[in-house]
Amino acid sequence: MAKITEVSPLAVPLPLLGPVPGVRLGAAEAGIRYRGRRDLMMMAFAPGTTVAGVFTRNLCPGAPIDWCREVLPAGAARALVVNAGNANVFTGRAGAESVRATAEAAAALAGCAPAAVFVASTGVIGEVLPHERLTAALPALHAALGENGWEDAARAIMTTDTFPKASTRRARIGGTAVTINGIAKGSGMIAPDMATMLSFVATDAAIPASVLQTLLERGVAPSFNCITVDSDTSTSDTLLLFATGQAAHPAVSSADDPALAGFAEALNAVLADLALQVARDGEGAQKLIRIEVTGAVSAISAKRIAFAIAHSPLVKTAVAGEDANWGRIVMAVGKAGEPADRDRLAVGIGGTWMARDGTVVAGYDEAPVVAHMKGREILIAVDIGLGEGAATVWTCDLTHGYIDINGSYRS
Amino acid sequence: MAKITEVSPLAVPLPLLGPVPGVRLGAAEAGIRYRGRRDLMMMAFAPGTTVAGVFTRNLCPGAPIDWCREVLPAGAARALVVNAGNANVFTGRAGAESVRATAEAAAALAGCAPAAVFVASTGVIGEVLPHERLTAALPALHAALGENGWEDAARAIMTTDTFPKASTRRARIGGTAVTINGIAKGSGMIAPDMATMLSFVATDAAIPASVLQTLLERGVAPSFNCITVDSDTSTSDTLLLFATGQAAHPAVSSADDPALAGFAEALNAVLADLALQVARDGEGAQKLIRIEVTGAVSAISAKRIAFAIAHSPLVKTAVAGEDANWGRIVMAVGKAGEPADRDRLAVGIGGTWMARDGTVVAGYDEAPVVAHMKGREILIAVDIGLGEGAATVWTCDLTHGYIDINGSYRS
Repeated sequence: MAKITEVSPLAVPLPLLGPVPGVRLGAAEAGIRYRGRRDLMMMAFAPGTTVAGVFTRNLCPGAPIDWCREVLPAGAARALVVNAGNANVFTGRAGAESVRATAEAAAALAGCAPAAVFVASTGVIGEVLPHERLTAALPALHAALGENGWEDAARAIMTTDTFPKASTRRARIGGTAVTINGIAKGSGMIAPDMATMLSFVATDAAIPASVLQTLLERGVAPSFNCITVDSDTSTSDTLLLFATGQAAHPAVSSADDPALAGFAEALNAVLADLALQVARDGEGAQKLIRIEVTGAVSAISAKRIAFAIAHSPLVKTAVAGEDANWGRIVMAVGKAGEPADRDRLAVGIGGTWMARDGTVVAGYDEAPVVAHMKGREILIAVDIGLGEGAATVWTCDLTHGYIDINGSYRS
Repeated sequence: MAKITEVSPLAVPLPLLGPVPGVRLGAAEAGIRYRGRRDLMMMAFAPGTTVAGVFTRNLCPGAPIDWCREVLPAGAARALVVNAGNANVFTGRAGAESVRATAEAAAALAGCAPAAVFVASTGVIGEVLPHERLTAALPALHAALGENGWEDAARAIMTTDTFPKASTRRARIGGTAVTINGIAKGSGMIAPDMATMLSFVATDAAIPASVLQTLLERGVAPSFNCITVDSDTSTSDTLLLFATGQAAHPAVSSADDPALAGFAEALNAVLADLALQVARDGEGAQKLIRIEVTGAVSAISAKRIAFAIAHSPLVKTAVAGEDANWGRIVMAVGKAGEPADRDRLAVGIGGTWMARDGTVVAGYDEAPVVAHMKGREILIAVDIGLGEGAATVWTCDLTHGYIDINGSYRS
């Protein structure tokens, strides 16, 4: 396995995460695959904690996804157990048994039913998870859980991430302050067999599970569902949102309750922040690319066009080469299969329109574009010229680093 | 632009192509972009020649595509003019004018209407085609056309191809021998701005245009429509099939005429041969990958799954690294969105089944798989276990060479 020791040049500093009332958490060394680092993370939640979740659309998911999907509809959570180093994917019946053993062990410690325990795994695919190491480490980990374990938790779930990822925001619900903390790991499908984007967000707000689910789905659409590293879809992507109900604010019963407006905004900011950090840690990434599509016939059409550009290896290698190659952007628009008229299309980079009405802008000044391409954050703008549909997605460039990470021999 | 001087390790020798009665062809230096090489190719066809064609599905095509689509329905061809070095794509009104000027110049020489002239261009995008250089070179080129110009033609249409591509077959229609010759260029979307797969096939058979179109579409489905290099779709892909009618065989009026069975088989062989040569010249390709999907719910579903595998950067980098990474293949099956049951899936490489029924095959012998991965031609087999749908597609690995070619600065 390629050793990637350099931190991404796009990394951002880890923010300081304070406590979320009702959440105790921590990390431990279970020795599942890695040596000399924490690879097991646990969160314990106060009674009454509600939960919402979204999962990979990959049709060959790992056993932990099956489990989470099964227990999520009850909407109640008392514990979360996450390991790094083994994804427990494509492990047949043994995979389901590992998940059950983990949930039962955590439930015994947390004093709850196994169905109130959520489980996630990330790491190699196709190897049976040695869950006895995990359950052996849980009692001491559980005994040591505390309110200030967020940084440890963010680090324990990393696989080939080059920096830990976390975000925090405060909001008010009916005048009462609440906190939202989140952590994430992942950079697409990750170096040899290291699949997965995982993210766990918790708040002390008191929000019914069905409302929480709606808020989460709304927040995911413009954040985690608007990033791509290499177009590959992990078998284990998991995003869980827990609400402990410890904050004493007026009751809310609908996602459209005006009292939740500030909370929804803060939640969306946490999700967007975490999603961007994942894109910033894309395998081999040297540049973050923001793609803004306007003028499409609908928002869905705009998003499809934006992803066609974001997925294009030719666009991503051009950015890696600091080449303002608008011809490849036009190609990617055309291959999206969405309504587009070559002769109305405009393409800009870094705020300069290079092509308009189906041809190059005569005598445009290339200097600012060349300067922009040398930066770390690249803006590609495309106006389709047909309607009002708009979308923004993020990706990173495609570099030799990606080939190094993913094309090296397994050891 | 990156200079790629090494010939692909997957190259095959150029076959000897004899004359096709009714076709005269040749190449010349027009100096459109390249210096010191032929960049202009012309074919002249006997009166009565019929034509069929298929084109890129990219919705932002080049001006030559617009022209060919407009004149194709008449089904008659007297000349073909192709240039390399400039794709005449995203060139606005000037692009259409260049095509018309080219067609008119060729028509005057061939003694036909402009609508009987087909045109194709490949090279940089977004620069106006200096067609006066092209039309200036045409009279001498036309005067020198001959029956034996196939190799010159195959070389003149190359851009960043590392070897010329041609194929030939013989067949019988009602006891009369006919010849099918074809040439091609392209390796996906090609090094800086060099878009396009082009292929031109000619036969002396006498086949009505509508029948020819049906035969071509049937032949393209399992050949050119089953290869991918990087999932990007050129704005200029063009495949034209000409039938000069010089062979004295009994008349045929339907693509299902039993007299055409041998011809159709030979045509399909030429198309498959040319398509595979394009995959063999994929940018940076070190290994040719054949992906066989069986057991899908339908043939269309099998093809979608096969392409999900063929497009996956993680599968392609694993092959580059000679890593028999079946976990990534499972991931790619799952992301296809087609019916698949993780617990029925089987994955094999080089004839050895590594995973079956949703988990690794206990104690499988890795030695033959490791040996197979070191070879130039890699076979990936996936059985979905749900039905009878099958498909085969070809691609190449994703290497540092691809990044070198596509991520270098434009000069």
